[in-house]
Amino acid sequence: MELEHNRQQASKTNKPVRCIVKLGGAAITCKNELEKINEDNLLSVCSQLRTAMMSGSLSDKVLSLDWSKRPGGSDTAPVVEDFTSQLVPECDNFVVVHGAGSFGHFQASKSGVHKGGLSQPLVKAGFVATRISVTSLNLEIVRALAREGIPSIGMSPFSCGWSTCDRKMDSADLTMITKAINSGFVPTDVLGVYDRPPSDPNAVLLREIAVREDGSWSVMTPVLQGTSKEVEITVAAHDTTGGMATKISEAAMIARQGVDVYIVKAATSHSVTALSGRLKDDIPEGWRGTVIRFVR
Amino acid sequence: MELEHNRQQASKTNKPVRCIVKLGGAAITCKNELEKINEDNLLSVCSQLRTAMMSGSLSDKVLSLDWSKRPGGSDTAPVVEDFTSQLVPECDNFVVVHGAGSFGHFQASKSGVHKGGLSQPLVKAGFVATRISVTSLNLEIVRALAREGIPSIGMSPFSCGWSTCDRKMDSADLTMITKAINSGFVPTDVLGVYDRPPSDPNAVLLREIAVREDGSWSVMTPVLQGTSKEVEITVAAHDTTGGMATKISEAAMIARQGVDVYIVKAATSHSVTALSGRLKDDIPEGWRGTVIRFVR
Repeated sequence: MELEHNRQQASKTNKPVRCIVKLGGAAITCKNELEKINEDNLLSVCSQLRTAMMSGSLSDKVLSLDWSKRPGGSDTAPVVEDFTSQLVPECDNFVVVHGAGSFGHFQASKSGVHKGGLSQPLVKAGFVATRISVTSLNLEIVRALAREGIPSIGMSPFSCGWSTCDRKMDSADLTMITKAINSGFVPTDVLGVYDRPPSDPNAVLLREIAVREDGSWSVMTPVLQGTSKEVEITVAAHDTTGGMATKISEAAMIARQGVDVYIVKAATSHSVTALSGRLKDDIPEGWRGTVIRFVR
Repeated sequence: MELEHNRQQASKTNKPVRCIVKLGGAAITCKNELEKINEDNLLSVCSQLRTAMMSGSLSDKVLSLDWSKRPGGSDTAPVVEDFTSQLVPECDNFVVVHGAGSFGHFQASKSGVHKGGLSQPLVKAGFVATRISVTSLNLEIVRALAREGIPSIGMSPFSCGWSTCDRKMDSADLTMITKAINSGFVPTDVLGVYDRPPSDPNAVLLREIAVREDGSWSVMTPVLQGTSKEVEITVAAHDTTGGMATKISEAAMIARQGVDVYIVKAATSHSVTALSGRLKDDIPEGWRGTVIRFVR
């Protein structure tokens, strides 16, 4: 599921994509409660995105672009004059992608839809149920971005006609998007990538992962001690999207194109630093997160 | 906005589209109350669609495909065994399209987004606000269809990369869909098309409209009496989609392809008859609605 604003306009003017942000499902939802959004985190994330996207053209006053009723809340009536006197900032070179967290995973794992087999009644039902759930989440994220004045448009890969085969994209559109990427990062609910599950008290945060020409990757810093130099990659039974192994492999594929990937905890000072673009030149000592980079 | 399920599968197997149903915005929403769905009508419509789509393979037990939480309601936990013992009916040759009613129109008319000019801040804001509103409606319609066991997938023309120029589609995809249509109809909140606004006590229901090769159309039955033989077409100020004139013109374009168009009141016995396909052969005396047909 992907949010992208003004895709048509962007393609017309050939503006390069400045940044692709992936919001981790665990960061924006309450992972242990079915279909519950982490409202505080989502608000912080959208506020940080506003700052990052609109640097230079920011006004103090946030003009909400969500003029819909909110459940249990009051109507949002726009003041037309505000929009004529103040620019809605240009930010059509940002792409926001998000995970599903406590949306979709229940429906997907109950039906096994991630394993394929749409001709089976249960899988077909699960496909519909999963899509309803993730579409609900997508809509709420679009609304949260819009309330921060970010002109965002929800885009579904399914509607775009994208398809996958063995979990890999099978579409010319992806190539176009990949080519346009300048930088990207992938926040999760922890500081970055660890050498073993972060719940393990001995887990060590990986600072830098190097990706080679052939797509293989290894940890550069810190230098891992002890018998196991390998990163222990486990996939939780309920994780229908492949767990960390898939996510690191995908990040490595992006890095191999020369696009740095930063994995940081959402809604923190570390995500602000990553969003600012400063990490391209220098990684400050106090910064906590994981950098995945191409090394020739 | 369009709902279409299993588009990929359908295109692979080249199944023809059996029917395109347009649900009028006024039929499925409460037109005078901002963003309020007409729940009773929507339920009736979805139930009728279930009957029409699944004839022959219908089971008495409706298995909901919406496994998401409902606001203020209980969770919907699926019973996996039900899906293994019972077929989720095949209905991938149906396309449902819907209007916006009290969703979207407020945001569109407030910002003038239907007149174009996306570079203006107010129009850009209105574009986002309108899309949020109509996407909310679309999601609720998909969920209502899913609760009737209809495996439906929301598809946004915007996400599909469709674009319009001067209110006309400018996309090869439309041609493919048009070619695949077998029959279609367009319900509104009245019985059909009238010779003047239906609120006028002298308004006469048009039974049959003939469309000619050049795209022009005229009323065949009833024979209109009096000085004005013309159909009086007015566009309400708040109607951002062009009013009846646009709708009849679009229906005429479909009819010119040899596809009969039926305009009926949603959730009535007349819509059941139209959905059954029987009108192709014979229009019963008691049936109330408007037929738009190509005449050589």
